[in-house]
Order: sequence, then structure tokens, then C-alpha cells
Amino acid sequence: MEKKNNITPFEKDIVKWYSDLVLKSDLVSYAPVKGTMFFKPHGFAIWNNIIKIVNNEFEKLEVEEVQFPLLIPQSFLEKEKKHVEGFAPEVLKVTNAGAKRLAEPLIIRPTSETLFGKYFEENLKSYSQLPVKLQQWVNVLRWENNTRPFLRNSEFFWQEGHTIHATAEEAHEFTKEVFKLYEKIANEILLLPVIAGEKTVSERFAGANNTYTIETILKDGQALQSGTSHYLSDNFSKAFNIKVQNKDNKLFNPYQTSWGISTRLIGAIIMEHSDNKGLILPSKIAPIQIAILTLFGNKNPKVLEVAKELNKKLNFKIKLDNSDRGLGYKSQEWELKGVPIRIEIGPNELDENKVTISLRNFDDKIQYNLNEIDDQFILKLLDKHDKKIYDEAVKIRESKKVEITSVDQIQTIVDNGQYGFAYWIENADAEKQIKTNTGATIRCLIDAEKEGQDIINSKPTKKIAVFSRAY
Amino acid sequence: MEKKNNITPFEKDIVKWYSDLVLKSDLVSYAPVKGTMFFKPHGFAIWNNIIKIVNNEFEKLEVEEVQFPLLIPQSFLEKEKKHVEGFAPEVLKVTNAGAKRLAEPLIIRPTSETLFGKYFEENLKSYSQLPVKLQQWVNVLRWENNTRPFLRNSEFFWQEGHTIHATAEEAHEFTKEVFKLYEKIANEILLLPVIAGEKTVSERFAGANNTYTIETILKDGQALQSGTSHYLSDNFSKAFNIKVQNKDNKLFNPYQTSWGISTRLIGAIIMEHSDNKGLILPSKIAPIQIAILTLFGNKNPKVLEVAKELNKKLNFKIKLDNSDRGLGYKSQEWELKGVPIRIEIGPNELDENKVTISLRNFDDKIQYNLNEIDDQFILKLLDKHDKKIYDEAVKIRESKKVEITSVDQIQTIVDNGQYGFAYWIENADAEKQIKTNTGATIRCLIDAEKEGQDIINSKPTKKIAVFSRAY
Repeated sequence: MEKKNNITPFEKDIVKWYSDLVLKSDLVSYAPVKGTMFFKPHGFAIWNNIIKIVNNEFEKLEVEEVQFPLLIPQSFLEKEKKHVEGFAPEVLKVTNAGAKRLAEPLIIRPTSETLFGKYFEENLKSYSQLPVKLQQWVNVLRWENNTRPFLRNSEFFWQEGHTIHATAEEAHEFTKEVFKLYEKIANEILLLPVIAGEKTVSERFAGANNTYTIETILKDGQALQSGTSHYLSDNFSKAFNIKVQNKDNKLFNPYQTSWGISTRLIGAIIMEHSDNKGLILPSKIAPIQIAILTLFGNKNPKVLEVAKELNKKLNFKIKLDNSDRGLGYKSQEWELKGVPIRIEIGPNELDENKVTISLRNFDDKIQYNLNEIDDQFILKLLDKHDKKIYDEAVKIRESKKVEITSVDQIQTIVDNGQYGFAYWIENADAEKQIKTNTGATIRCLIDAEKEGQDIINSKPTKKIAVFSRAY
Repeated sequence: MEKKNNITPFEKDIVKWYSDLVLKSDLVSYAPVKGTMFFKPHGFAIWNNIIKIVNNEFEKLEVEEVQFPLLIPQSFLEKEKKHVEGFAPEVLKVTNAGAKRLAEPLIIRPTSETLFGKYFEENLKSYSQLPVKLQQWVNVLRWENNTRPFLRNSEFFWQEGHTIHATAEEAHEFTKEVFKLYEKIANEILLLPVIAGEKTVSERFAGANNTYTIETILKDGQALQSGTSHYLSDNFSKAFNIKVQNKDNKLFNPYQTSWGISTRLIGAIIMEHSDNKGLILPSKIAPIQIAILTLFGNKNPKVLEVAKELNKKLNFKIKLDNSDRGLGYKSQEWELKGVPIRIEIGPNELDENKVTISLRNFDDKIQYNLNEIDDQFILKLLDKHDKKIYDEAVKIRESKKVEITSVDQIQTIVDNGQYGFAYWIENADAEKQIKTNTGATIRCLIDAEKEGQDIINSKPTKKIAVFSRAY
């Protein structure tokens, strides 16, 4: 009865499994320009759901939405020294309009710190206007060599936030507030048990004093940077000559933050939660939360009527599949697409006023009395579904974790598809050497519960570095 | 008491009035690249409101949302002959990634027919998959010489729809259905009494068999193309070799439509409805629908309490302005920003349980008993406010209208800031000559109630051409 879904098992080839998944579940298809994609309805609905939830949280922080230009004069990018060094190799350059050569080349935004710098310079006069908290949901472009849908794209979509504050303390506090919010959204909504910490000096955003990051450990033991929040201090404010008057009418450079999450999150969700039958999606971002599948619905008015009533009664995103296909085929399609709950309605069961319910990530099918099924009942099932997703992800994260006591271990650990924790004192040379030798980077520094010995110089420290290969 | 708002009166200089308005009401500010803008929170909120309302309507037509790439290989644009001719002069070309030259130049989308062509070619096999109805809300770029915020930008934002159908009839019908919906949204939501008709052959979209348009007549008598819907027949389907099987397993090229509305609509709204005090915004898209202004609210707990209660009680988008400024200043700010209703709360009036209400586009201030004010009451006021906006726009449109009986009149009409109706039979040569001589174009052809005589050859026709200068 079941048709094979043709997804390569992830135990066999995780790279192929991942690309089979995103293509066959109708999230995206490849577009003609390398690293870009056709974001299809089922995929884009996930992103739209994430946007809605995130916007709701950022409204509480009084962040306002704007939309700034795609194009940046090349000279702008060059104003902040570290910034241009960080982005120059991957920016796309526009040189012509029609047949005419432009006077100055234009850069397609890889990020928009420079435009926000210009904007703040022109629009701010006094401390009384501060803080200003802005965000935009836009496309950005960074030319990449090795691209994979969602995980690494030349064009991707993101939330890009920029704020400006009267004091360094307030700006730094806000940086951390956004960081904590990202951690919360990852854990509670996306069901990604991320590791949250601070980047080392060498891994910071180009132009930031501090970069805070959430990192997801994926099924293959590699880390995916899943959201960052940067404290920019007055670096851009000085580079862009943003000056505002303080209470005593003296001019000063205010303090900035920037932060972002992107469509990479969808990559993290797919890779972390899904299985060989297809997508498994957290219920809060699933485009379809319930699939109601009828058996002979087209030939049996009673079945169809009950299906329609249920569709009307339940306040969730529902797909009513009344097609002529067999229940096996239908189940397989909605499993592939990551629908959390399937409700099967057939004539025999209905005689006893019963329907059969399956959750996407549990094997059993359970009969319920039709009268039991209401919003509260569904919510409980979704909680059960989501809890299992999260627990499994924690299991993956913990199963890949190794304590590192000596640098020599790192090569073996990352070769084994694991990641490691090591007591660490900032040491850019050692960090660089490890990266060159093993491909592992420090994803972030986190606070240890107890003091330990730095693995390079055996000096005491309460910081732990998380080493892994990364996307 | 009133501070001057420094907006140039439109009777004096309509161009300056318009730019004063968009800048001082905080909709946008100019960005560094010509023709691009910083879309500020107050401006972007209008666009977001339009998106929500439009999406709601298009869901009913079963249109799904996607997001396709920004970049198009140059060779794609060249596949449809008329299409490339239409867009080649204004496309922006990406030639470099970092320091490296790209193998093939990439075009920043001026529109996305070619990408949708490719997508349909790759994703469609059988007639049973049809129709497919897709839309995206994206930025597009067309390099322009004379730019003005919203009215003509190098980067603008739009809804871009693309559908594909099994039969020519169905596709053409859908083209007209979207056209009718655009007309309805313009009239009922944006309060723009547009002229709706079909483009002449020479004014069609590059690659379309039919283009339907809604045109707004602005305060200066010029027309603004405010939304278009194109029947593409099988032109792109052939150019992109889109082939699907029919019921008899034979291959055929399906039929397409495309359509769009853009941030130009915001330009139309501003220019058409606003006055010398600032913006006047249709209530359904106003970012703030009610401003509650307190007098001495910070010093008078009773005033503040009532303001907060009202804020909580009313289910509208409300700004509670409890700042220390005088009521005159506050009123002026929210008038400038186009807030439909202002509710002033002061201590003396409160002793009698009264507040004062003004509508943005009426001169009188009226006292109401506090108890009267509920959602129903506000809705009635908003209706009154909106009805007057629409009536005034109809008045403008009608006051600029002239019946043309001879070609010689056209120059005078457009020089007078008017537009004209003329009986017309398609005649590309005459149309071109009028355009060259007078700057007037045929905005669209509409159906006449009665037959009349074509102004060129005096032949009978039931078609009327609308002549005007245009943005």
C-alpha cells in the first residue's frame, strides 16, 4: 500500500538525505543562480510563521519595522575598516545600469550596518530621541562557494535589527536582551536546544566589540550558527560621524547594537528534527498543523460531513484531504511534509463515532471518540508531539558532546562527528592553529559552573570553549 | 499656540508640497543611492497594512505566497524578445563577486516573469497540477532618471503575482478577476476612485497580449498607473518551453498571467488625499487610527486614568500621547502624520464627563459624553472621515476631466493640468504622434455607454481613450 518516498536514509548519506528532504517535501527547488532558491509555498509559510512569532516578541521590546535599500555605495562599506575586510570577499557588485556604466559601483547589501549608520547620522540630533530600535525583514546576498539550501545560501532572508542608545551600558544590555530572546525562541518555539555563548575575538562580527551567538548542534555533530547579537559600541557611530547632543548640549557618539536570525533556522529545524519519512516540524511554525484524511470521503457523505465539521470546529491550521487516494498515500504525503497530527476518518469507525489519530513522531495510531476532539485536546497532542521533538534534540546534542582535556583530542572528536568542551582562556594563536589543523572552530565561550584548567597553559579559568566543525 | 509645520502649500508648489509631506510626516528619508529611500516606521506600517488587506483578498482566490530569487541570469531575460526590449535599458547588472568577475552577468530583477517561467518549466508535468497561482511581496529595481519618493523609485516594493492555467480562457478570466479586485481595493480601501481600463497595444506590458490597468488622476491632473494585470497568453510558456501533458497525454504550452501593485499606491494616497496640514490617510491603512491627547496628563492622575481606560476599551490602533507638550503641538503632530481621529482629554471637561473629538479632515471639534465612546461610535466616525476622503477624490477626478472632440485640444488640456476622454479606435501612429507632440499618453481604453466618433477618422466606436500626462 505504501509507495516509497525515495528519501535517502540519513544513516546512509546525511547530505543526500537533507537535500532529498528539502526538495521532496516541497520547501524549495533550486534556482538558476548558484546558491539561490525558489522558496515554495510550503517552505515560505514556515518562514512567515517564524516572522509572525518573532515580530510579536520584538514588539514588546518596542522595536519598530523599517525597510532600507538593497544597494549600498561601495565607499560606505569602506568606512569601517574591519567591516569592509570581513565582507569584501563575498559582496556582489553592480557596475552597470542598462548599457551605462555607473559612476560608483554599488554593493548589494551583505548586511546593513553602513546604511543604518548613515540613517542615524542624518536623523538624530539629540539624546532625547534615543534609544531608536529598528528592524527589517529583508533579503541579503553573500557570494558563497559551497552552498546548501537554507544552511548556506548566496541569497538568504533574515531579521536584521539595529539599535542606537545614549549609553554604552544600555546598548550592551540590549545586545544581551536580544541574545536571551533568541535563545528562548530557539528553545521554546523552534525546539532547538541551542548552546548560547559569546564569540571569541577572532570569531566576532566584523566591527563588533562583542558577539553573542546561539549555536545548534546538528545530527552530524557539526554546529550551525543560528542567531547572533552584536554590541557595536561606538565603532560605526564614529565611522559614520553620528553625533547627538547630550543634556549639556555637548556632542557625543552614541552606542549601537545589531542582531539577526535568518532562514538558516529552517535548515537547523530540518536537519535536527526530521527523519527518513520526511519533515518533522515544531507545531507552532508548521504551515499545516492537522491533516484530516478521509477514506472514501467522496463517496460517503457522512464521512465528508464529519471531516468538514471537524475542520470548522478546530481552530488550527488544517488541511482537509478528501482526495481519492488511499489512506496510505495520503498519510505518507502529510508525513513527508511534517504535519504534526493526522486524523483519519473512515465509514466503519464512524459507525462507532470514532476516528483514528496519529502524531508525526510517534508510531502508534490511536482511536478516539469523536466527541473528545476539541481545541484543548489538540493542544495536548501538539504538546506531546513538541516535547518529544525537543527531547530528541537534547539527546542528539548530549550524545555528541565530549570533554576535552588536551588539544590532541580535537582532531579525533570532530572526525567522529562530535564536538567538545574545553576550559579556555582567549588565545587567538592557539585557536587559529587548531582551526588550521583540524577544521574545528570555537563556536562560543560559555561560563563554567566550576573553575578548571585552560587546556593550553593549564591556567585557571571559568570559561569553557565549545569546539566543533561548523556549517 | 500653533507652531508652523513648514509644509509648502500645494497651491504654491505641488512638487515641493509633496516632498515636504513625505519627509516631514516621517514616511521616508532619502537614501544614498539615487531613487532609493529609507522607509521609516510610519511609512512602512502603511505598506504592511496594505499587504495584510491585500493578502486576505488573494487568499480567497487561492493564491499562495512564495519568494523567488533577486538575481536572474542575463540570458533568461533575453528569452522573451519583447520582454528584454522593454526592460533592458533600466536593469542593474551584477558583474563581480568580491574581486572576481562572474562568468555570466546577473540582472537584479526588474520583474520576475522569467524566473517564474523557469520554475513552471521545471515543476509542472501534467494539466492536473493546474492552475498554479503564486505571488510574492518583494523589492524590484529599475534604474530611473527622474525619481520621486513612492511615485518613481529605482527600488520599489510590490506584490508580484504569477499564475498558469490549462486554458487561454481561464487565464484571461483570472487576469480580469485580479484587475477587478485591484479596482475594488483601490476604491474601497485606499479611497482612490481610479479609472479602470485596458492598455493600448503600445502601452502594454512587454510580453503581454492584454494589460488591464487602474489609473489614479492626481491633484495635478496627471495620471498614476496604480496597478496592472497582464494576460500573457502562451508567450512566456513558449519562450521557456513550459510543456505539460493534457488528458490525452499530449504536450501543450499552458497560459499565464502576471499582475502587480506597488508602493506607488502610497504615492497616490499621499498626493490625492493630503492637504497643507499633512497626511490624510484612509482609516483602514492608517498606522495610527486614534490619537488620545491628554492635557496635563502627567500632572493630573484622573486625566491619565481616563486616557488609559479609553486606550484599553477601544479596539483600534491607538497612540496615547501623554507628553508635556501643549494640545496645539500634539494635535499638529498627529494631523501631520494623518491620524484620522483625535480625542482630547482635559481636566475641566472631565468634570462634566466629556472629551473633545476632531476628525483629521473636518474643521470642527465636537464634545462628546465619555460614555458614548465605544467601538461602534468610532467606526461611525471613521466612516464619516473615509467617505469625505473618497468624495473629495471623486471631485478632483471629475474637475480635471474634459471631453475631447479634436486632437488639437489635447495640448491645452494637459498644459492646464487636466485630462481628457476621446472616442478612439486603436491607432498606434496617431497615439505616438500625440505623445511626441503633447507628452500625453493613452492611460487606458474604457467602454463608452453610447457609440461615438473616433477623433482621428470619425469612424464609429464604443471605446474611449483616456489621455493625460503621467508619472
